[in-house]
Amino acid sequence: MHKRLKLGMVGGGQGAFIGAVHRIAARIDDEFELVAGALSSKPEVAQQSAAQLGIAPDRAYADFKEMAKAEAARADGIDAVSVVTPNHMHFPVAKAFLEQGIHVVCDKPLTANLDEAKQLAEIGKASKVEFVLTHNYSGYPMVREARHLVQSGALGKLRRVNVEYAQDWLSEAITDPENKQASWRADPKQAGKGGAIADIGTHAMQLANFITLQTPEILAADLTSFVKGRLVDDDAHMMLRYASGAKGYLLATQVAPGNENNLRIQIYGEKAGLTWAQENPNQLWFAPLNAPKQLLTRGGHGTSAQTQGQIRVPPGHPEGYLEGFATIYRDAADLIRNGRCENCLLPTLEDGLLGMQFIEAAIQSSAHDSAWTRIGD
Amino acid sequence: MHKRLKLGMVGGGQGAFIGAVHRIAARIDDEFELVAGALSSKPEVAQQSAAQLGIAPDRAYADFKEMAKAEAARADGIDAVSVVTPNHMHFPVAKAFLEQGIHVVCDKPLTANLDEAKQLAEIGKASKVEFVLTHNYSGYPMVREARHLVQSGALGKLRRVNVEYAQDWLSEAITDPENKQASWRADPKQAGKGGAIADIGTHAMQLANFITLQTPEILAADLTSFVKGRLVDDDAHMMLRYASGAKGYLLATQVAPGNENNLRIQIYGEKAGLTWAQENPNQLWFAPLNAPKQLLTRGGHGTSAQTQGQIRVPPGHPEGYLEGFATIYRDAADLIRNGRCENCLLPTLEDGLLGMQFIEAAIQSSAHDSAWTRIGD
Amino acid sequence: MHKRLKLGMVGGGQGAFIGAVHRIAARIDDEFELVAGALSSKPEVAQQSAAQLGIAPDRAYADFKEMAKAEAARADGIDAVSVVTPNHMHFPVAKAFLEQGIHVVCDKPLTANLDEAKQLAEIGKASKVEFVLTHNYSGYPMVREARHLVQSGALGKLRRVNVEYAQDWLSEAITDPENKQASWRADPKQAGKGGAIADIGTHAMQLANFITLQTPEILAADLTSFVKGRLVDDDAHMMLRYASGAKGYLLATQVAPGNENNLRIQIYGEKAGLTWAQENPNQLWFAPLNAPKQLLTRGGHGTSAQTQGQIRVPPGHPEGYLEGFATIYRDAADLIRNGRCENCLLPTLEDGLLGMQFIEAAIQSSAHDSAWTRIGD
Amino acid sequence: MHKRLKLGMVGGGQGAFIGAVHRIAARIDDEFELVAGALSSKPEVAQQSAAQLGIAPDRAYADFKEMAKAEAARADGIDAVSVVTPNHMHFPVAKAFLEQGIHVVCDKPLTANLDEAKQLAEIGKASKVEFVLTHNYSGYPMVREARHLVQSGALGKLRRVNVEYAQDWLSEAITDPENKQASWRADPKQAGKGGAIADIGTHAMQLANFITLQTPEILAADLTSFVKGRLVDDDAHMMLRYASGAKGYLLATQVAPGNENNLRIQIYGEKAGLTWAQENPNQLWFAPLNAPKQLLTRGGHGTSAQTQGQIRVPPGHPEGYLEGFATIYRDAADLIRNGRCENCLLPTLEDGLLGMQFIEAAIQSSAHDSAWTRIGD
Repeated sequence: MHKRLKLGMVGGGQGAFIGAVHRIAARIDDEFELVAGALSSKPEVAQQSAAQLGIAPDRAYADFKEMAKAEAARADGIDAVSVVTPNHMHFPVAKAFLEQGIHVVCDKPLTANLDEAKQLAEIGKASKVEFVLTHNYSGYPMVREARHLVQSGALGKLRRVNVEYAQDWLSEAITDPENKQASWRADPKQAGKGGAIADIGTHAMQLANFITLQTPEILAADLTSFVKGRLVDDDAHMMLRYASGAKGYLLATQVAPGNENNLRIQIYGEKAGLTWAQENPNQLWFAPLNAPKQLLTRGGHGTSAQTQGQIRVPPGHPEGYLEGFATIYRDAADLIRNGRCENCLLPTLEDGLLGMQFIEAAIQSSAHDSAWTRIGD
Repeated sequence: MHKRLKLGMVGGGQGAFIGAVHRIAARIDDEFELVAGALSSKPEVAQQSAAQLGIAPDRAYADFKEMAKAEAARADGIDAVSVVTPNHMHFPVAKAFLEQGIHVVCDKPLTANLDEAKQLAEIGKASKVEFVLTHNYSGYPMVREARHLVQSGALGKLRRVNVEYAQDWLSEAITDPENKQASWRADPKQAGKGGAIADIGTHAMQLANFITLQTPEILAADLTSFVKGRLVDDDAHMMLRYASGAKGYLLATQVAPGNENNLRIQIYGEKAGLTWAQENPNQLWFAPLNAPKQLLTRGGHGTSAQTQGQIRVPPGHPEGYLEGFATIYRDAADLIRNGRCENCLLPTLEDGLLGMQFIEAAIQSSAHDSAWTRIGD
Repeated sequence: MHKRLKLGMVGGGQGAFIGAVHRIAARIDDEFELVAGALSSKPEVAQQSAAQLGIAPDRAYADFKEMAKAEAARADGIDAVSVVTPNHMHFPVAKAFLEQGIHVVCDKPLTANLDEAKQLAEIGKASKVEFVLTHNYSGYPMVREARHLVQSGALGKLRRVNVEYAQDWLSEAITDPENKQASWRADPKQAGKGGAIADIGTHAMQLANFITLQTPEILAADLTSFVKGRLVDDDAHMMLRYASGAKGYLLATQVAPGNENNLRIQIYGEKAGLTWAQENPNQLWFAPLNAPKQLLTRGGHGTSAQTQGQIRVPPGHPEGYLEGFATIYRDAADLIRNGRCENCLLPTLEDGLLGMQFIEAAIQSSAHDSAWTRIGD
Repeated sequence: MHKRLKLGMVGGGQGAFIGAVHRIAARIDDEFELVAGALSSKPEVAQQSAAQLGIAPDRAYADFKEMAKAEAARADGIDAVSVVTPNHMHFPVAKAFLEQGIHVVCDKPLTANLDEAKQLAEIGKASKVEFVLTHNYSGYPMVREARHLVQSGALGKLRRVNVEYAQDWLSEAITDPENKQASWRADPKQAGKGGAIADIGTHAMQLANFITLQTPEILAADLTSFVKGRLVDDDAHMMLRYASGAKGYLLATQVAPGNENNLRIQIYGEKAGLTWAQENPNQLWFAPLNAPKQLLTRGGHGTSAQTQGQIRVPPGHPEGYLEGFATIYRDAADLIRNGRCENCLLPTLEDGLLGMQFIEAAIQSSAHDSAWTRIGD
């Protein structure tokens, strides 16, 4: 008999964006049911939000620490918690639940600064429960197919990695105080000192790392705040060098009119190239050297058995952002139930730490006239 | 406190395709929970399938009639049933539940033949409960935006409607008896006498009708079975004429290599044109006469408040097939709870009957040397 | 030593469109030099136009018959003439030059009516000189590659041919008398009784015939004049049937907002499909059944030696409309010099006659309630 | 009476690529006729090549210096010369003709090194004749439209310029000694010390400068030779900073499988963004902030009168690489005849010098660990 895992959530109350995404993602494959929450730090909002989501009043908490304790103490307590707060709360919330032996699914970036990230990585290592970071783009089937192609050697030795994440929603100063999204993300106290570099740059970096199975060794970055009065970068560009000899660039910009969520990656190896773009994620261009380009489709002809096994609807019926996100939850359920990570495709605490090191390196490089800077020192 | 509607399902056991789609669609917006099912006509499969879906054993039925009665009798009986059987079972199943006062969400085409469709339409009219037909493509936000543009007069008087649904999966004879999908769809006893015309032609026709707010008056059709030994058409093409003076064509083909689910519509009016294609459904081309073409995006700049209110994730984060399908369920929940159909965007029994009349007219026209034939006689 | 062929031109004076296209096309490969012309029926315009083109005054004729005679009589007379008048003048002009033993390169459609076409075909047969019809789209390298793929058997037996030519420039009534283009094309006296069917429908039909190496046997057409007061059709749609069992449709419309010169063809066979569109002519989609789609590029990997031998600039440097047109002239030069037609890729008088029979059949079918009508009776 | 300018050519004999391009480009608008040439340094090849092109034997030179003198001395001597040799010959050839008072149209990059470029710039300044550098991409109508949009203020203050030129033809070592193209371009003695940076990087930089009406002040570059044994860079990437505060990147790579001539530019300003790509050059995306994206087409609705005045065939009939190149020649003819440069759209000696300074700065920066390096010192 199918039994759903019991899920709690911290953050994600009324007016929030990413909480709703996590809830749908957790629901799509029917592996989780949401039964508890500390959805807002404002008790009234927390209660109302919980009621709207069908959470029983006695499991609608105003305080995440209380929730962690209470749920750990219940016989029917939650198996896992989703952490969907602003960045600066990731650390204390994740810590509280990890310490209570409750699995954690946490939004990215891992924390608001590198120190917290290092601490959390230690806490995670010491813990017996799992920690999953929702770098959701790695849940797209064609991203996994791209990784498969690299891993299988179809591209040969890699030479160049170009990754861009371009948005336009921060092209102007956000003056509406009601825009909860924009306001916390632009506030270094809540988001950390990185702007675009943290919010979307980490996604781009993780995507590249995920597909290439490599991490750049050093970077030379140029971060900019184009919009007057903005306290964090809204445009981050850098050159990358890999230990393997590969080179690359990463661009994360939120001031590029005409771009909604234009996350795009190009990878070139000695034997082939590939291109994938998030806004039409069901396609992957594969270009073997000296042969015609192929347009691979999600689960379509020429894709791997692994990718074909991960799709929910047949080729030509597009899956989107929520399905990619749901795959992270589906895999997380598998990990939680079975204690193992099939093919290690789930983003981990180490990926989260790496992301924070990446942010730190980019900020340091940019502060030192774009000097080549090691990621991870 | 949020209360989910209780949902049952007939059909959709192990090995079936569309049942899983309905279940995810029903779950995405958290308006339904699946609590009962007659998932297969084979008792053992029905039990196993139910267990896998977390349905309690006492609500796992082997017989849909028994299920309809038993559920109607329970205090906590289902509010609605999803009918996801092969076509020839739509009629008896829908009838059984309608007669028990249980709302019905039914896959298309409505029935296996026109007689059943007419009967069902009568039964529906007499019933106090709702009947929703899952012509899911009308749940895509940009399809609704297209309809909105037509309705608002942005295209002016319509002149031409071109709609195509091209697939390639039936380009060869299906010899694998395990391919449950292909086998029942190609069997007139289970699918009805239409092949491509019924399976995908009805989707194309409904899409055109939905967006244009018109139904063609007459058609001249040419149906073909290209694959040797196939008992139904695998390619259906027709010219359309509307009472308004507009003209059009509809092509439904399952033997077009390179096409997965290439459902595409072009509409031209006196003042503007538009183009939408299902495989990248988050985009809609809008071409006002004597001005540059615009690429509208789901919820993006220039789209209507109505469309912006229906999206789940921001522009640039694609929604897919399942979300479009989920919108049908979300609207159905609204209809069931509130007894009204906001803007009448849900496909109804009348649409289903029209679909069957369309199939009939196409088959008749094709049998009479493509003579112009009235839809609905 | 390279010697250019001497070319004359009838039509194409100031304000005309297609004459300038022919001149550039004839020039691109340096096989022709323009030395004589009857560029306008108005003597003054003829003289001025000739001077602007560097034609010596004594070879600037006001009358095409005089020109034909005079040039035939000169030792250094023209080798060939380009006929770029409105349609109704194609017949007398072509006849005059053929009868003087001067090769003819003629714009399409062949003539203004079927009778003239039949006469001209006879005259052509009796003549010792060549007649080339500028169905220029067959000069695009990727159109020839498409034909090559069909011919080589890569698609297997053909099943379906879909061809569309959509424009929007006649969406409204043309009231500007200065619009020379629009006015003669909409005037049955100058253009013949076909509108869209003749102007662009013949191009679409020739393209399909060229690539498929087949001609439809019968058609069922529906022609419409959407714009009030227009004397010829501005929208022509039809179903096609081939003797081989293949089916198809052809749409030629000039009232489709958002379309400039959207000539597009899709061909589906038992083994593969292909798609080509004129507005980005350097690409050809090739979709083998049960394998990934390939994007072939002009002269790129995977294209035939024949195609690679016809390009002027490397893959990725686009060639356009004028180069496709120029290929017709280059081949014509080859034919004129060598008296043979390599692979028979040049459109001929027979193609022109077929085009007129196609127009006639479409008009007849449409007048008889879209009855299936034989092409060529 | 139309009189063509008399053109000579140095380089471009049998087996060469770019010479044929220049000849077609010069011919398209009928402003030039080729009457003299020193097409090869091998006398026999020079004679044969000249004969094939219809150049009279007495004007087929084996030596460019002799040609410059002889043509300058003739009453009917050439008005202009096209210099299409390998890079290291640009300087002596251009110098020889400038000094004889013959206009020069020269391929890029200007010279093989910066010293020569500076000398040539001085010679040019002192000369009374014109010097045109064939940065042909600036001849594409939609590139000019892009520049017009920037100039008109439609983008507001620029923030970011991303320009890429990706090819794949040097992904492997070229071992065929017959590949004249590949061999001289990879030989520093003939091509200069830059590889990709000089061959295609200069095109990318000129394109960006042309459209933005700005030149970057400093750059930080990372140049790589990925293919073993190659003596010059085959991949050049850099970050750019402009005096205006704008930032950018430039990537020139010849080892990117799947790219033929993928020159692409994205420009983002405070008010709008635009994107153009060379492989489908008839389109330009224009994205005003907070409004739908527009797809502008060559000469189509919404484009400037200036652009509409430069096209040869109507919107939807694509122009390609040769037409863009021809526009440089057409403008050059205008400049030569009238002694003025309408709107200064022709690339000049100063642009050529800037290109050499750009190459030099990139090589210097790369040699100094990607230090920010001034362009032009």
